[in-house]
Formats: sequence, structure tokens, C-alpha cells
Amino acid sequence: MSSEDAGPRLYFEDLAVGRRVTTASVSVDADAIKAFASQFDPQPFHLDEAAAVKSFFGGLVASGWHTAALTMRLLVTSGLPIAGGVIGAGGEVQWPRPTYPGDTLTVVCEVIAAKPSKSRPDRGMVTVRSETVNQDAEVVQVMTAHLVVPRRPS
Amino acid sequence: MSSEDAGPRLYFEDLAVGRRVTTASVSVDADAIKAFASQFDPQPFHLDEAAAVKSFFGGLVASGWHTAALTMRLLVTSGLPIAGGVIGAGGEVQWPRPTYPGDTLTVVCEVIAAKPSKSRPDRGMVTVRSETVNQDAEVVQVMTAHLVVPRRPS
Repeated sequence: MSSEDAGPRLYFEDLAVGRRVTTASVSVDADAIKAFASQFDPQPFHLDEAAAVKSFFGGLVASGWHTAALTMRLLVTSGLPIAGGVIGAGGEVQWPRPTYPGDTLTVVCEVIAAKPSKSRPDRGMVTVRSETVNQDAEVVQVMTAHLVVPRRPS
Repeated sequence: MSSEDAGPRLYFEDLAVGRRVTTASVSVDADAIKAFASQFDPQPFHLDEAAAVKSFFGGLVASGWHTAALTMRLLVTSGLPIAGGVIGAGGEVQWPRPTYPGDTLTVVCEVIAAKPSKSRPDRGMVTVRSETVNQDAEVVQVMTAHLVVPRRPS
């Protein structure tokens, strides 16, 4: 995947409320789950199958932050080719179920709000709700993100 | 850093509203910023100094998800040694300013709500507000996370 595959660049004017995009997919295996966790979330249920069995999750699962990072990769490389980049000021994230080794994730996102900036006529704020789903269409993450998006140059 | 350094395990009963914890610190350099971005957020302002100068940020900055992941590492390894692990159901995240190469990050967190579970007498839900600050005490991330925490066995 590369951002070159993502098609034309999007401006604020292109991101009308209701616009929906489905990204490409990415798979995650146990080695990737452990590699992420050893750097950023070194807890037994993300690092070691045997220890994970005795944990809250009952087996190895990905860090929620790993799911979030993979979601960002999908949005950047195949979901929202925004002119100037996908630049988030923040948002809300929920992880209704874990990502497991072998899962294949896809993101479905929808523009739920779009407002021109009052102070900066060259940009607007766009709110995007993204559902990250696994191969069984189960939702592993719901994110509502506020993005800074440039207006189309006139 | 390892979770063994984190002291005694915390239960729901230990996490009273108002309890504050400051973590250890972690530094992030340009190579780490680029390595994270190439995997999870491949955009020019996270990957390449020259391209970043011409971007929204005016220079190389870390992905917000990298800041979030480093915050999690600090919380897990030196902030909140919760019995059973730091298990988040979700929350809100804001990035008021970017993390730059060379920054040293520290997390200050505070319990802002704690409620026993009605359906599961062995656990409770604890809300923690975490500010991630750089070496100049500037806030790079504010996160409010909802954690699942076991009650102390009686």
C-alpha cells in the first residue's frame, strides 16, 4: 500500500456529510501483535500466549493502540486521501472487542460533520466516524475523529 | 523499564478519585518517529524532514498515535500497575500540540471517576485523565480513558 494508490486528493468541499469510504484491508498476526506490545504496551495478554490464557482476555489479543495504529494506516493509505494529509486534532475511541492474531481489519468511515473555520478561511473541520471491522464484520474499534482539512484553492 | 519496577499491584479500592501518579519519562528521536510512521502513519510530515517543512506542521513531528502509544508504555510500565493489567474500553484523546524529535515525554494522570460494576461484583470502572507533557511542560496529549479494574479479593 502507498498513498500514491489512493486516488485524487480530497479537499473540504469533497467531504460532505454522509460521504462513506471503505478502505483496503490489513491482516495482523501474533508476531506483529507481540512486536507492537513489546514497544508500547508490554502486558502479558499482548506478549505471551500462555500468560494470556490466564488473563482477562483468555488469549493473546492486540493492544487497542495497535488496532488504532492499523486503522490510521488504512485511512492514510487507502481511505481518506486528504490534500495536506490526514491531520487529527483528537477524538473518541472505543474498543468493543479485541483484535486477535490472524484477524483481517477493514475500516468503513463516514463524514458526520463538516464546518468551515471561522478564523481560517483556508480550512475547515471535518468529523469522521470510523468503524474498524474484522473478517467476520465484528466491530473492533469505533473512532470519531476531528480532522483539519484544507479548502479547495479558488 | 519493566512492569516489575512498578511496585505493588493496584485494585479498584486503591484508585480513589483524586489519586495522582506521575510516570517515568521517555525520549523520542527522529528515527523512532519515522519508524512508527512508516508502519502506521506514512505521511510526509512524519517521514521526511524536507517534505515536513512544506507541510501544515512546518517540520517533522510524531504521529499522534505514536504519542498515544508512548503514553500507554509509560502508564503500563511506571504509572498504573493495576492488578490484571491496564485494560481500556476506550476514551477521548486530544493532541493540542505535536511531539517533536528530541522531546522527552512524561505522563501525569489522575483518577477522575470510579464506579463499581453493577453486573460484575469482582470489578469496577475507573476513569483516568492523563496529560502527556514534554520537557518544557507543554501538553502534547490529553486522554480520558475508561479502565476495567478488578476489585480487591476479599
